Amino acid sequence: MPFHTMNAGDLSKCVEFLNEIEKLKIVYRQNSVVGNSRRENSAEHSWHIAIMAIVLQGFSDEPSIDIFKVVKMLLIHDLVEIDVGDTFLYDAESNVLKEEREIAAAKRVFGLLPEKIGAELHRLWEEFEGMATPEAKYARALDSLQPLMNHLLTQNKEYLNHKVKSDRVVEKKRHIALASATLWEYAKDVIRESEKVGLYRKE
Amino acid sequence: MPFHTMNAGDLSKCVEFLNEIEKLKIVYRQNSVVGNSRRENSAEHSWHIAIMAIVLQGFSDEPSIDIFKVVKMLLIHDLVEIDVGDTFLYDAESNVLKEEREIAAAKRVFGLLPEKIGAELHRLWEEFEGMATPEAKYARALDSLQPLMNHLLTQNKEYLNHKVKSDRVVEKKRHIALASATLWEYAKDVIRESEKVGLYRKE
Repeated sequence: MPFHTMNAGDLSKCVEFLNEIEKLKIVYRQNSVVGNSRRENSAEHSWHIAIMAIVLQGFSDEPSIDIFKVVKMLLIHDLVEIDVGDTFLYDAESNVLKEEREIAAAKRVFGLLPEKIGAELHRLWEEFEGMATPEAKYARALDSLQPLMNHLLTQNKEYLNHKVKSDRVVEKKRHIALASATLWEYAKDVIRESEKVGLYRKE
Repeated sequence: MPFHTMNAGDLSKCVEFLNEIEKLKIVYRQNSVVGNSRRENSAEHSWHIAIMAIVLQGFSDEPSIDIFKVVKMLLIHDLVEIDVGDTFLYDAESNVLKEEREIAAAKRVFGLLPEKIGAELHRLWEEFEGMATPEAKYARALDSLQPLMNHLLTQNKEYLNHKVKSDRVVEKKRHIALASATLWEYAKDVIRESEKVGLYRKE
Protein backbone atom coordinates (compact mmCIF):
# COMPACT_ATOMS: atom_id res chain seq x y z
CA MET A 1 0.00 0.00 0.00
CA PRO A 2 -0.61 2.38 -1.63
CA PHE A 3 -1.04 0.62 -4.95
CA HIS A 4 0.25 3.12 -7.48
CA THR A 5 0.78 0.53 -10.14
CA MET A 6 -2.96 0.27 -10.70
CA ASN A 7 -4.23 0.30 -14.28
CA ALA A 8 -7.47 -0.07 -16.24
CA GLY A 9 -7.55 -3.85 -15.69
CA ASP A 10 -7.18 -3.33 -11.97
CA LEU A 11 -10.05 -0.84 -12.03
CA SER A 12 -12.29 -3.42 -13.72
CA LYS A 13 -11.45 -5.93 -11.02
CA CYS A 14 -12.15 -3.41 -8.26
CA VAL A 15 -15.50 -2.53 -9.85
CA GLU A 16 -16.46 -6.20 -10.09
CA PHE A 17 -15.63 -6.64 -6.40
CA LEU A 18 -17.47 -3.47 -5.37
CA ASN A 19 -20.56 -4.53 -7.31
CA GLU A 20 -20.36 -8.03 -5.84
CA ILE A 21 -20.29 -6.79 -2.24
CA GLU A 22 -23.60 -4.95 -2.81
CA LYS A 23 -25.03 -8.40 -1.99
CA LEU A 24 -23.98 -8.17 1.67
CA LYS A 25 -26.75 -5.58 2.09
CA ILE A 26 -29.31 -8.34 1.55
CA VAL A 27 -27.74 -10.86 3.94
CA TYR A 28 -30.03 -10.56 6.97
CA ARG A 29 -29.13 -11.37 10.56
CA GLN A 30 -31.17 -12.36 13.61
CA ASN A 31 -31.00 -8.82 15.00
CA SER A 32 -33.40 -6.05 14.03
CA VAL A 33 -33.15 -2.37 13.23
CA VAL A 34 -34.70 0.10 15.69
CA GLY A 35 -38.48 -0.02 15.37
CA ASN A 36 -38.23 -3.68 14.25
CA SER A 37 -39.37 -2.88 10.70
CA ARG A 38 -36.87 -5.39 9.32
CA ARG A 39 -33.87 -7.52 10.20
CA GLU A 40 -30.43 -5.95 10.38
CA ASN A 41 -28.12 -6.85 7.50
CA SER A 42 -24.44 -7.70 7.64
CA ALA A 43 -23.31 -4.58 5.76
CA GLU A 44 -24.83 -2.10 8.23
CA HIS A 45 -23.71 -4.33 11.13
CA SER A 46 -20.15 -4.07 9.77
CA TRP A 47 -20.47 -0.29 9.52
CA HIS A 48 -21.65 -0.11 13.12
CA ILE A 49 -18.79 -2.12 14.59
CA ALA A 50 -16.20 -0.23 12.53
CA ILE A 51 -17.37 2.95 14.27
CA MET A 52 -17.38 1.10 17.60
CA ALA A 53 -13.71 0.23 17.05
CA ILE A 54 -12.86 3.92 16.75
CA VAL A 55 -15.07 5.17 19.57
CA LEU A 56 -14.23 2.45 22.11
CA GLN A 57 -10.49 2.14 21.43
CA GLY A 58 -9.71 3.65 24.84
CA PHE A 59 -11.21 0.54 26.44
CA SER A 60 -8.91 -1.92 24.67
CA ASP A 61 -6.55 -3.56 27.18
CA GLU A 62 -3.82 -3.47 24.51
CA PRO A 63 -2.66 0.15 24.33
CA SER A 64 -0.62 -0.17 21.11
CA ILE A 65 -3.41 -1.66 19.03
CA ASP A 66 -3.57 -0.73 15.31
CA ILE A 67 -7.09 0.63 15.01
CA PHE A 68 -7.05 1.05 11.23
CA LYS A 69 -6.23 -2.65 10.92
CA VAL A 70 -9.18 -3.42 13.21
CA VAL A 71 -11.48 -1.19 11.14
CA LYS A 72 -10.42 -2.88 7.90
CA MET A 73 -11.00 -6.32 9.45
CA LEU A 74 -14.46 -5.33 10.61
CA LEU A 75 -15.47 -3.79 7.28
CA ILE A 76 -14.65 -7.02 5.42
CA HIS A 77 -15.18 -9.68 8.11
CA ASP A 78 -18.64 -10.76 6.90
CA LEU A 79 -18.09 -10.70 3.13
CA VAL A 80 -17.96 -14.51 3.10
CA GLU A 81 -21.66 -14.42 4.00
CA ILE A 82 -22.40 -13.38 0.42
CA ASP A 83 -21.89 -17.06 -0.41
CA VAL A 84 -22.58 -18.70 2.95
CA GLY A 85 -25.27 -16.55 4.58
CA ASP A 86 -25.36 -15.50 8.21
CA THR A 87 -25.19 -18.34 10.74
CA PHE A 88 -27.07 -17.88 14.00
CA LEU A 89 -24.55 -17.99 16.84
CA TYR A 90 -26.60 -20.41 18.93
CA ASP A 91 -27.20 -22.89 16.11
CA ALA A 92 -24.44 -25.41 16.91
CA GLU A 93 -24.96 -27.64 13.88
CA SER A 94 -24.77 -24.89 11.27
CA ASN A 95 -21.65 -23.49 12.90
CA VAL A 96 -19.79 -26.78 12.54
CA LEU A 97 -20.56 -26.96 8.83
CA LYS A 98 -19.82 -23.40 7.89
CA GLU A 99 -16.03 -23.21 8.26
CA GLU A 100 -15.03 -24.91 5.03
CA ARG A 101 -17.63 -23.03 3.03
CA GLU A 102 -16.41 -19.72 4.43
CA ILE A 103 -12.82 -20.51 3.48
CA ALA A 104 -13.93 -21.14 -0.11
CA ALA A 105 -16.05 -17.98 -0.09
CA ALA A 106 -13.13 -15.86 1.09
CA LYS A 107 -10.98 -17.22 -1.71
CA ARG A 108 -13.64 -16.37 -4.29
CA VAL A 109 -14.65 -12.92 -3.02
CA PHE A 110 -11.18 -11.53 -2.28
CA GLY A 111 -9.97 -13.23 -5.47
CA LEU A 112 -12.07 -10.78 -7.49
CA LEU A 113 -9.68 -7.97 -6.55
CA PRO A 114 -6.26 -7.08 -8.00
CA GLU A 115 -3.74 -9.45 -6.43
CA LYS A 116 -2.06 -7.16 -3.90
CA ILE A 117 -5.12 -5.59 -2.27
CA GLY A 118 -7.04 -8.87 -2.54
CA ALA A 119 -4.28 -10.73 -0.71
CA GLU A 120 -4.12 -8.06 2.00
CA LEU A 121 -7.86 -8.22 2.71
CA HIS A 122 -7.82 -12.02 2.57
CA ARG A 123 -4.99 -12.08 5.16
CA LEU A 124 -6.97 -9.68 7.37
CA TRP A 125 -10.00 -11.96 7.18
CA GLU A 126 -7.85 -14.95 8.18
CA GLU A 127 -6.35 -12.97 11.05
CA PHE A 128 -9.84 -12.03 12.24
CA GLU A 129 -10.92 -15.66 12.11
CA GLY A 130 -7.77 -16.82 13.92
CA MET A 131 -8.42 -14.46 16.85
CA ALA A 132 -4.75 -14.67 17.93
CA THR A 133 -3.54 -11.05 17.54
CA PRO A 134 -4.59 -8.09 19.72
CA GLU A 135 -6.32 -6.53 16.69
CA ALA A 136 -8.28 -9.70 15.95
CA LYS A 137 -9.29 -10.13 19.60
CA TYR A 138 -10.53 -6.55 19.80
CA ALA A 139 -12.36 -6.85 16.47
CA ARG A 140 -14.02 -10.11 17.54
CA ALA A 141 -15.02 -8.55 20.86
CA LEU A 142 -16.87 -5.74 19.07
CA ASP A 143 -18.46 -8.17 16.62
CA SER A 144 -19.85 -10.00 19.68
CA LEU A 145 -20.77 -6.95 21.74
CA GLN A 146 -22.82 -5.05 19.14
CA PRO A 147 -25.57 -7.70 18.78
CA LEU A 148 -26.01 -7.73 22.57
CA MET A 149 -26.45 -3.96 22.65
CA ASN A 150 -28.71 -4.03 19.61
CA HIS A 151 -30.85 -6.77 21.12
CA LEU A 152 -31.41 -4.90 24.37
CA LEU A 153 -32.14 -1.68 22.48
CA THR A 154 -34.57 -3.11 19.92
CA GLN A 155 -36.12 -5.76 22.21
CA ASN A 156 -36.49 -7.96 19.14
CA LYS A 157 -39.11 -10.56 20.04
CA GLU A 158 -37.95 -13.12 17.47
CA TYR A 159 -34.99 -14.06 19.62
CA LEU A 160 -37.48 -15.35 22.15
CA ASN A 161 -38.51 -18.09 19.77
CA HIS A 162 -34.99 -19.43 19.98
CA LYS A 163 -35.28 -19.67 23.76
CA VAL A 164 -31.63 -18.84 24.31
CA LYS A 165 -30.45 -19.18 27.92
CA SER A 166 -28.41 -16.40 29.54
CA ASP A 167 -25.66 -18.84 30.55
CA ARG A 168 -25.20 -19.84 26.96
CA VAL A 169 -24.96 -16.20 25.92
CA VAL A 170 -22.33 -15.56 28.59
CA GLU A 171 -20.37 -18.60 27.42
CA LYS A 172 -20.47 -17.51 23.76
CA LYS A 173 -19.47 -13.92 24.56
CA ARG A 174 -16.80 -14.62 27.19
CA HIS A 175 -13.99 -13.97 24.67
CA ILE A 176 -14.78 -10.23 24.91
CA ALA A 177 -12.66 -10.39 28.10
CA LEU A 178 -9.61 -11.23 25.97
CA ALA A 179 -9.76 -7.72 24.49
CA SER A 180 -11.14 -5.57 27.31
CA ALA A 181 -11.99 -6.20 30.96
CA THR A 182 -14.21 -3.09 30.96
CA LEU A 183 -16.17 -4.08 27.86
CA TRP A 184 -16.66 -7.59 29.24
CA GLU A 185 -18.09 -6.18 32.48
CA TYR A 186 -20.37 -4.00 30.39
CA ALA A 187 -21.39 -6.97 28.21
CA LYS A 188 -22.37 -8.97 31.30
CA ASP A 189 -24.48 -6.01 32.49
CA VAL A 190 -26.25 -5.97 29.12
CA ILE A 191 -26.89 -9.72 29.28
CA ARG A 192 -28.29 -9.46 32.84
CA GLU A 193 -30.51 -6.55 31.84
CA SER A 194 -31.68 -8.44 28.74
CA GLU A 195 -32.55 -11.48 30.85
CA LYS A 196 -34.53 -9.22 33.19
CA VAL A 197 -36.69 -7.89 30.35
CA GLY A 198 -37.26 -11.42 29.06
CA LEU A 199 -34.95 -11.53 26.05
CA TYR A 200 -33.06 -14.58 27.34
CA ARG A 201 -34.22 -17.43 29.56
CA LYS A 202 -32.78 -17.74 33.04
CA GLU A 203 -33.26 -21.53 33.15
CA MET B 1 -5.77 9.11 20.43
CA PRO B 2 -5.77 6.56 21.94
CA PHE B 3 -7.96 7.71 24.79
CA HIS B 4 -6.54 5.86 27.78
CA THR B 5 -8.11 8.22 30.24
CA MET B 6 -11.51 6.71 29.58
CA ASN B 7 -13.70 5.84 32.55
CA ALA B 8 -17.19 4.54 33.33
CA GLY B 9 -18.80 7.89 32.50
CA ASP B 10 -17.09 7.87 29.13
CA LEU B 11 -18.37 4.37 28.46
CA SER B 12 -21.94 5.51 29.15
CA LYS B 13 -21.52 8.34 26.66
CA CYS B 14 -20.07 6.00 24.05
CA VAL B 15 -22.97 3.59 24.55
CA GLU B 16 -25.50 6.39 24.18
CA PHE B 17 -23.84 7.46 20.93
CA LEU B 18 -23.61 3.88 19.61
CA ASN B 19 -27.29 3.28 20.39
CA GLU B 20 -28.23 6.60 18.78
CA ILE B 21 -26.47 5.80 15.50
CA GLU B 22 -28.58 2.64 15.12
CA LYS B 23 -31.06 5.11 13.64
CA LEU B 24 -28.93 5.66 10.53
CA LYS B 25 -29.94 2.15 9.45
CA ILE B 26 -33.48 3.42 8.91
CA VAL B 27 -32.56 6.55 6.98
CA TYR B 28 -33.37 5.48 3.41
CA ARG B 29 -31.85 6.89 0.23
CA GLN B 30 -33.02 7.08 -3.39
CA ASN B 31 -30.83 4.13 -4.35
CA SER B 32 -31.89 0.49 -3.99
CA VAL B 33 -30.27 -2.72 -2.85
CA VAL B 34 -29.66 -5.42 -5.48
CA GLY B 35 -32.96 -7.04 -6.39
CA ASN B 36 -34.76 -3.77 -5.55
CA SER B 37 -36.50 -5.28 -2.49
CA ARG B 38 -35.98 -2.03 -0.58
CA ARG B 39 -34.16 1.31 -0.62
CA GLU B 40 -30.54 1.46 0.42
CA ASN B 41 -29.93 3.08 3.80
CA SER B 42 -27.21 5.52 4.77
CA ALA B 43 -25.44 3.10 7.14
CA GLU B 44 -24.81 0.42 4.53
CA HIS B 45 -23.97 3.12 1.97
CA SER B 46 -21.31 4.41 4.41
CA TRP B 47 -19.95 0.88 4.84
CA HIS B 48 -19.70 0.46 1.08
CA ILE B 49 -17.76 3.66 0.43
CA ALA B 50 -15.40 2.99 3.36
CA ILE B 51 -14.39 -0.23 1.59
CA MET B 52 -14.16 1.66 -1.71
CA ALA B 53 -11.68 4.06 -0.09
CA ILE B 54 -9.39 1.13 0.76
CA VAL B 55 -9.77 -0.76 -2.50
CA LEU B 56 -9.49 2.24 -4.86
CA GLN B 57 -6.73 4.14 -3.05
CA GLY B 58 -4.31 3.42 -5.92
CA PHE B 59 -6.47 5.64 -8.13
CA SER B 60 -6.21 8.71 -5.93
CA ASP B 61 -4.20 11.44 -7.68
CA GLU B 62 -2.75 12.39 -4.29
CA PRO B 63 -0.19 9.68 -3.45
CA SER B 64 0.35 10.62 0.21
CA ILE B 65 -3.30 10.55 1.17
CA ASP B 66 -4.20 9.35 4.71
CA ILE B 67 -6.63 6.52 3.98
CA PHE B 68 -7.62 5.88 7.59
CA LYS B 69 -8.69 9.51 7.86
CA VAL B 70 -10.77 9.04 4.70
CA VAL B 71 -12.34 5.86 6.10
CA LYS B 72 -13.25 7.58 9.36
CA MET B 73 -14.80 10.50 7.44
CA LEU B 74 -16.86 8.15 5.32
CA LEU B 75 -18.07 6.08 8.27
CA ILE B 76 -19.45 9.17 10.03
CA HIS B 77 -20.23 11.52 7.12
CA ASP B 78 -23.98 10.81 7.08
CA LEU B 79 -24.69 10.70 10.82
CA VAL B 80 -26.32 14.14 10.59
CA GLU B 81 -29.08 12.46 8.57
CA ILE B 82 -30.37 10.91 11.80
CA ASP B 83 -31.86 14.36 12.45
CA VAL B 84 -32.11 15.77 8.94
CA GLY B 85 -32.86 12.76 6.71
CA ASP B 86 -31.31 12.08 3.32
CA THR B 87 -31.65 14.87 0.77
CA PHE B 88 -31.97 13.87 -2.88
CA LEU B 89 -29.00 15.33 -4.77
CA TYR B 90 -31.14 16.72 -7.58
CA ASP B 91 -33.66 18.42 -5.31
CA ALA B 92 -32.25 21.97 -5.38
CA GLU B 93 -34.67 23.49 -2.87
CA SER B 94 -34.09 20.92 -0.12
CA ASN B 95 -30.34 21.21 -0.55
CA VAL B 96 -30.39 24.95 0.11
CA LEU B 97 -32.29 24.48 3.36
CA LYS B 98 -30.35 21.57 4.78
CA GLU B 99 -26.99 23.14 5.65
CA GLU B 100 -27.95 24.84 8.88
CA ARG B 101 -29.93 21.85 10.10
CA GLU B 102 -26.95 19.56 9.41
CA ILE B 103 -24.63 21.82 11.40
CA ALA B 104 -26.98 21.59 14.38
CA ALA B 105 -27.31 17.82 13.94
CA ALA B 106 -23.54 17.35 13.92
CA LYS B 107 -23.26 19.32 17.14
CA ARG B 108 -25.91 17.17 18.79
CA VAL B 109 -24.79 13.74 17.55
CA PHE B 110 -21.03 14.13 18.06
CA GLY B 111 -21.80 15.92 21.32
CA LEU B 112 -23.10 12.66 22.75
CA LEU B 113 -19.53 11.30 22.86
CA PRO B 114 -16.74 11.95 25.39
CA GLU B 115 -15.21 15.32 24.52
CA LYS B 116 -11.97 14.23 22.84
CA ILE B 117 -13.30 11.59 20.46
CA GLY B 118 -16.46 13.62 19.84
CA ALA B 119 -14.41 16.66 18.85
CA GLU B 120 -12.22 14.57 16.53
CA LEU B 121 -15.18 13.09 14.67
CA HIS B 122 -16.90 16.47 14.51
CA ARG B 123 -13.76 18.00 12.96
CA LEU B 124 -13.61 15.15 10.42
CA TRP B 125 -17.22 15.80 9.47
CA GLU B 126 -16.47 19.51 8.97
CA GLU B 127 -13.40 18.63 6.89
CA PHE B 128 -15.52 16.32 4.73
CA GLU B 129 -18.11 19.05 4.22
CA GLY B 130 -15.41 21.64 3.41
CA MET B 131 -13.96 19.49 0.63
CA ALA B 132 -10.66 21.38 0.76
CA THR B 133 -8.14 18.71 1.81
CA PRO B 134 -6.98 15.77 -0.35
CA GLU B 135 -8.69 13.37 2.07
CA ALA B 136 -11.99 15.24 1.90
CA LYS B 137 -11.85 15.46 -1.90
CA TYR B 138 -11.22 11.73 -2.21
CA ALA B 139 -13.92 10.92 0.34
CA ARG B 140 -16.45 13.14 -1.46
CA ALA B 141 -15.51 11.56 -4.79
CA LEU B 142 -16.37 8.10 -3.46
CA ASP B 143 -19.57 9.35 -1.85
CA SER B 144 -20.59 10.58 -5.31
CA LEU B 145 -19.32 7.62 -7.32
CA GLN B 146 -20.99 4.80 -5.37
CA PRO B 147 -24.59 5.88 -6.10
CA LEU B 148 -23.78 6.01 -9.84
CA MET B 149 -22.41 2.46 -9.76
CA ASN B 150 -25.30 1.27 -7.61
CA HIS B 151 -27.84 2.86 -9.93
CA LEU B 152 -26.43 1.19 -13.03
CA LEU B 153 -26.18 -2.15 -11.21
CA THR B 154 -29.67 -2.17 -9.68
CA GLN B 155 -31.42 -0.34 -12.56
CA ASN B 156 -33.71 1.19 -9.96
CA LYS B 157 -36.76 2.40 -11.87
CA GLU B 158 -37.79 4.98 -9.27
CA TYR B 159 -35.05 7.33 -10.42
CA LEU B 160 -36.90 7.55 -13.71
CA ASN B 161 -39.74 9.35 -12.01
CA HIS B 162 -37.35 12.14 -11.20
CA LYS B 163 -36.49 12.50 -14.89
CA VAL B 164 -32.90 13.47 -14.16
CA LYS B 165 -30.93 14.61 -17.22
CA SER B 166 -27.45 13.18 -17.87
CA ASP B 167 -25.92 16.66 -18.15
CA ARG B 168 -27.18 17.49 -14.69
CA VAL B 169 -25.65 14.26 -13.34
CA VAL B 170 -22.30 15.09 -14.96
CA GLU B 171 -22.43 18.59 -13.50
CA LYS B 172 -23.19 17.29 -9.97
CA LYS B 173 -20.49 14.62 -10.12
CA ARG B 174 -17.72 16.64 -11.80
CA HIS B 175 -15.92 17.14 -8.48
CA ILE B 176 -14.79 13.48 -8.67
CA ALA B 177 -12.08 14.81 -11.01
CA LEU B 178 -10.59 16.79 -8.11
CA ALA B 179 -9.61 13.48 -6.49
CA SER B 180 -8.89 11.18 -9.40
CA ALA B 181 -8.72 11.64 -13.18
CA THR B 182 -9.17 7.88 -13.64
CA LEU B 183 -12.24 7.62 -11.42
CA TRP B 184 -13.79 10.64 -13.15
CA GLU B 185 -13.30 8.99 -16.57
CA TYR B 186 -14.89 5.86 -15.13
CA ALA B 187 -17.78 7.86 -13.62
CA LYS B 188 -18.50 9.43 -17.02
CA ASP B 189 -18.56 5.94 -18.58
CA VAL B 190 -21.09 4.85 -15.96
CA ILE B 191 -23.26 7.90 -16.61
CA ARG B 192 -23.17 7.31 -20.39
CA GLU B 193 -24.03 3.65 -19.93
CA SER B 194 -26.85 4.55 -17.51
CA GLU B 195 -28.27 7.02 -20.03
CA LYS B 196 -28.16 4.30 -22.70
CA VAL B 197 -30.27 1.92 -20.60
CA GLY B 198 -32.75 4.70 -19.85
CA LEU B 199 -31.82 5.61 -16.28
CA TYR B 200 -31.21 9.28 -17.13
CA ARG B 201 -32.77 11.46 -19.82
CA LYS B 202 -30.60 12.66 -22.69
CA GLU B 203 -32.66 15.84 -23.23
